[in-house]
Amino acid sequence: MSQLQKIQFYDIAGNCTDDHAWSPNTWKTRYALNYKGLSYRTIWLEYPDIERVCKEVGAKPSQEPKEGDSAPPYYSCPFIYDPNTNTAVSDSARIARYLDKTYPETPAVIPPGTDALHAAFESAFASAVIMPLLPILLPASHTYLNPRSQDHYRRNRERELGELFGGKLEDWSSPGPVREEQWRAIREGLSKVNAWMTVDGHEKPYVMGNQVCYADLFVAAWLVWVKRILGPQSSEWVELETWDGGRWGKLMKDMEQYEVVL
Amino acid sequence: MSQLQKIQFYDIAGNCTDDHAWSPNTWKTRYALNYKGLSYRTIWLEYPDIERVCKEVGAKPSQEPKEGDSAPPYYSCPFIYDPNTNTAVSDSARIARYLDKTYPETPAVIPPGTDALHAAFESAFASAVIMPLLPILLPASHTYLNPRSQDHYRRNRERELGELFGGKLEDWSSPGPVREEQWRAIREGLSKVNAWMTVDGHEKPYVMGNQVCYADLFVAAWLVWVKRILGPQSSEWVELETWDGGRWGKLMKDMEQYEVVL
Repeated sequence: MSQLQKIQFYDIAGNCTDDHAWSPNTWKTRYALNYKGLSYRTIWLEYPDIERVCKEVGAKPSQEPKEGDSAPPYYSCPFIYDPNTNTAVSDSARIARYLDKTYPETPAVIPPGTDALHAAFESAFASAVIMPLLPILLPASHTYLNPRSQDHYRRNRERELGELFGGKLEDWSSPGPVREEQWRAIREGLSKVNAWMTVDGHEKPYVMGNQVCYADLFVAAWLVWVKRILGPQSSEWVELETWDGGRWGKLMKDMEQYEVVL
Repeated sequence: MSQLQKIQFYDIAGNCTDDHAWSPNTWKTRYALNYKGLSYRTIWLEYPDIERVCKEVGAKPSQEPKEGDSAPPYYSCPFIYDPNTNTAVSDSARIARYLDKTYPETPAVIPPGTDALHAAFESAFASAVIMPLLPILLPASHTYLNPRSQDHYRRNRERELGELFGGKLEDWSSPGPVREEQWRAIREGLSKVNAWMTVDGHEKPYVMGNQVCYADLFVAAWLVWVKRILGPQSSEWVELETWDGGRWGKLMKDMEQYEVVL
């Protein structure tokens, strides 16, 4: 890979750790880049700058507006610019497919024929696990952003989810019974995912068996968010690592080798 | 296959067509048996007899009770008894895996490594499409059952879902705005599935690309339920066939060759 120029990987800066990396959506791409051993550098952005920089490098909105939809196009991280092919790609699943195709000598993360199954996995995981995570993790993430991003983040999250979770970010996860119930829902959701990965009574280490695929990177990206935002020593994270016979703790231990931030 | 004895396939009798076949869950297994070209015969049961016959042939409950769960074990169709191996198997995904493993000269429906992705697909499809189908299709299915099954079916469905959908089966899908809204939700759900099957703008004919897999049989099983219960000439079915650029009509046309009831 040494002759190649570094891929530019655009992420949102946070301060929960020394290395700024926190966003679950961009972790999907970081894991893919690290797992493939590709050469890249991270460019840290603030929320209000994402759309402008996307346009500068030619990255499309991450969601194409639907026919008849009057909402403005939605630009978001992650996106990449690959100087080796002069190509910009947005949306983590598209980026994974692009990297599989463009660098076929690296391990594929979405094996041929599994794109739709991966998309369905994302949808099912979102209902089971991501939705229950949001009322705890979104407010906690807000506290680690830089001030310019904080305003943008609060405005958008409270507009999108304030009605569902209860007004201002600070009120989404009251300590005590509310938080305990939210935490129980997360456990229940992960236990569903564990059941998918248990075939005729045998627990498989990864979604596709013994080999890491994009769905594992996807799961790990959401869990590393929890680990980094709540803290690896927090009682909640330590408890999560033990659930489902220690599956999630084991997965995150396996993933540590791909957690480097470049 | 001619030296083999016929697999016994247990299904629930209905009267919406001449051949009794209606239940979406058992259609998953019928499609798998027909797609593989295996020799089998259908044994038609009434609901109150399922548990007894399961026990007679040694088929396990389709859902293992969870630890600490006091609910009685749940026996359901489909289940099979294979006299060639003296094995009984229940639950359509388990049956598919059993058939793939026991008859490796037939086309596999769950390719190696895709079990968990298939389970996630089922979960995502259930949220997107099956839930919206229930208030229309469950009451309509009830009318085609034999009297012994009708009582059992009404009691269980109204207990499980009456609170959600509004009391007695007859009240779940009032003609007019309620039904139109339910139908719109089904369309929206199928459109999500279409999006999963559209990769970087290219629509794939089947979930895994160009080759049928269990997820396609699964989708077809739920759609053949709609086709048979509402009727292939009904305005609702005819409309559904046109959705998503005709994808669902095309799929069901492709599946007709596996729709034989033996």
